[in-house]
Amino acid sequence: LEQERLPIIPRLMRPLHPADQADLIERLAPEQRLTLIAAMGATFDADILAYLDATVRDELVGTLGEEDLTRFLSALDSDDAVDLFGELDEEEQARILAALPAKDRIFLEEGLNFPEDSAGRLMQREMVVVPSHWTVGQTIDFLRTVRNLPDDFYDIFVVDPGHRPVGELALSHLLRAKRPVRVSDIMRKDFRKVRAEMDQEEVALLFRQYGLVAAPVVSEDDRLLGVITVDDVVDVIDEEAEEDLMRLAGLGESDLYGSLWDTTKTRFPWLVMNLLTAIAASLVIGMFEATIEKVVALAVLMPIVASMGGNAGTQTLTVAVRALAMRDIDTRNAMKFIAKETLVGSLNGIAFAVLVAGASIAWFGDFEIAWIIAVAMVLNLVVAGLAGTLIPLGLQRFKIDPAVASGVFLTTVTDVVGFFAFLGLATLFLL
Amino acid sequence: LEQERLPIIPRLMRPLHPADQADLIERLAPEQRLTLIAAMGATFDADILAYLDATVRDELVGTLGEEDLTRFLSALDSDDAVDLFGELDEEEQARILAALPAKDRIFLEEGLNFPEDSAGRLMQREMVVVPSHWTVGQTIDFLRTVRNLPDDFYDIFVVDPGHRPVGELALSHLLRAKRPVRVSDIMRKDFRKVRAEMDQEEVALLFRQYGLVAAPVVSEDDRLLGVITVDDVVDVIDEEAEEDLMRLAGLGESDLYGSLWDTTKTRFPWLVMNLLTAIAASLVIGMFEATIEKVVALAVLMPIVASMGGNAGTQTLTVAVRALAMRDIDTRNAMKFIAKETLVGSLNGIAFAVLVAGASIAWFGDFEIAWIIAVAMVLNLVVAGLAGTLIPLGLQRFKIDPAVASGVFLTTVTDVVGFFAFLGLATLFLL
Repeated sequence: LEQERLPIIPRLMRPLHPADQADLIERLAPEQRLTLIAAMGATFDADILAYLDATVRDELVGTLGEEDLTRFLSALDSDDAVDLFGELDEEEQARILAALPAKDRIFLEEGLNFPEDSAGRLMQREMVVVPSHWTVGQTIDFLRTVRNLPDDFYDIFVVDPGHRPVGELALSHLLRAKRPVRVSDIMRKDFRKVRAEMDQEEVALLFRQYGLVAAPVVSEDDRLLGVITVDDVVDVIDEEAEEDLMRLAGLGESDLYGSLWDTTKTRFPWLVMNLLTAIAASLVIGMFEATIEKVVALAVLMPIVASMGGNAGTQTLTVAVRALAMRDIDTRNAMKFIAKETLVGSLNGIAFAVLVAGASIAWFGDFEIAWIIAVAMVLNLVVAGLAGTLIPLGLQRFKIDPAVASGVFLTTVTDVVGFFAFLGLATLFLL
Repeated sequence: LEQERLPIIPRLMRPLHPADQADLIERLAPEQRLTLIAAMGATFDADILAYLDATVRDELVGTLGEEDLTRFLSALDSDDAVDLFGELDEEEQARILAALPAKDRIFLEEGLNFPEDSAGRLMQREMVVVPSHWTVGQTIDFLRTVRNLPDDFYDIFVVDPGHRPVGELALSHLLRAKRPVRVSDIMRKDFRKVRAEMDQEEVALLFRQYGLVAAPVVSEDDRLLGVITVDDVVDVIDEEAEEDLMRLAGLGESDLYGSLWDTTKTRFPWLVMNLLTAIAASLVIGMFEATIEKVVALAVLMPIVASMGGNAGTQTLTVAVRALAMRDIDTRNAMKFIAKETLVGSLNGIAFAVLVAGASIAWFGDFEIAWIIAVAMVLNLVVAGLAGTLIPLGLQRFKIDPAVASGVFLTTVTDVVGFFAFLGLATLFLL
């Protein structure tokens, strides 16, 4: 990216796929990104924006001129355009809307009316719709003459006079039928519709569950609004999986491309929560200062009980959070799951009680400490199984994302119970 | 599932989608599953097997008779059939192969030759292939007359006389063209091929990166073998995301449907690893027994430093594991990532040093302990940033899945450094 080499950039970038160009841009430092894009000039493809990481795109869009933005918004598919448009501030939105052709304007305004992360935001407005009285021949002739078709599509939607979808026709079925056949005779009638307000997570589950390739999106009064295709759903699945992973670790989203300062700031609140947890554990230990002063071996061994509880609980918690996200757990089988996890905790608790009792006899030669740590271990692993299931299920019931908050609550419980059981038993029986 | 109500089961199940029937079966107890399937008799659709959770399917397949298995294998798409067939033992495989029609047999045998989790296993053999000299009219006539077509398809592949793919033709493009046009004039030539040996994770990345809907699978000598469609890739993305999530928590896969005993056994090894980690931390504490005996406040405060290090490190680790899986980190930007995470660790380290020093002054009124815990905190959060990046990058370099093992190494490092720094400084300056 040296000054004298800038003129050859368009030639270097052109053969690359927009997705690869987006990757290249992501990897540059913020100032370099602007230099590169300026050097690309008119060869900068609007599709690159659709492939960029959200953090990087937000930053870029803030620096783009109105003219460029208007050009990109017209060139993008309606779903990507709504995405991009939603990131602008209101003033910019108003000015750009005025500069856009009427059809693009309506799509953008309507798109923004749907809640974020809803099917309405995800759908594409470009689709092929035919009335149910048409024949295969009419449909094929229509496809051959109309210019304004989406670039790729897999299904045609059949509608009644009220523009309500009545059937879905895969192109492979259309192609196999003879020209005089009516589309209403070969269309699939048991297709699945998506309401525009549906959350994108639900949409992804629907596609996954039934292996869908495309689904029509309808308004409240069942009119056909647009189509969601599986490639958009792949992005959603990816996002949702990443979200769960990140939230379990106390991050809102991957901050790989975030700046040093932003990254530090976004990680801070979660660490504060953990500090409070750790202080809670310390308060419990503080209650038993007198006991520790007399038997220092307790201080040496006490982190073992707490740590095993935390880890066993996290195993349970992770299975629960994933199963809740996949709708594999509901009120009917929740009890079974809780019971099973508590039993798993008891069994592993007994196994590790034996191991850790053996280890502490070998180390300190003290049978009393050995049975105390063994009992504390069983107790804490049973509690870990219970907490690992009850905490995410409870949060889900109160409509709090179990991936976000479960971890903090869990380690608080396992730390407090772990330290309290071990040091409490020691105080009762050793002194 | 009472005896007298069994005869109505086929009528109840029939209107359900195979995916929903699979969900229903998954939720039953193992014995109930067999009763239900027996009651369904011939109305049991082979597709249900394709939708079942792998654990449940393995268990069911073990109890199915040879006759049923043969029938199901013929009815399934080739990719699902290979999956199912691969789960049988060798003797069963041989007997069933003998009972199958020649074409199914060849597909199964070839399918099993590809490594597990490879593109060859994922692909479907059913596809539409036309020679490049055909016209649009010939292709459409062919589609209308041939009986043996896959049920749904989105792309037609164009091959040269050596059966090597030379182009990909979306049905929407075929439909828009006039009959005399040659397919070679409208096909897409810059399509992406997948080698049969490619790992399914790579295949998923390719589909994601370029928003593909279908991709041809070729042999080593570039002959067209089959096609991978995006709905298969959705399953892979799901699996891989779940795998990373589970592995970070020390589980091979979600054991939601595993039996009590299997679940207990599979969770045991990870907990053993954690026990060793915890014992390592205890050994460090043991080195400073004399110090703790004199200043018990140290025992109360010491878990705070270790726990904050573990949590900050896990944040970094999670971002690193996800970025490595997405190929967003490689040798060119690894240094930048490590430097950034170390700096994030220092900044948050300073912030929490101040907080925790304040808390310990408030609690114990001891300025010396306050500055010792502050220094230990900064040290441990810097180490957490370093370990959270270096451990996964190092494991990746040695071709070990960073999601599996990173967590254990990380907490070992942060525990050992946390306890050692805090207690070590205390020993040096307090006594």
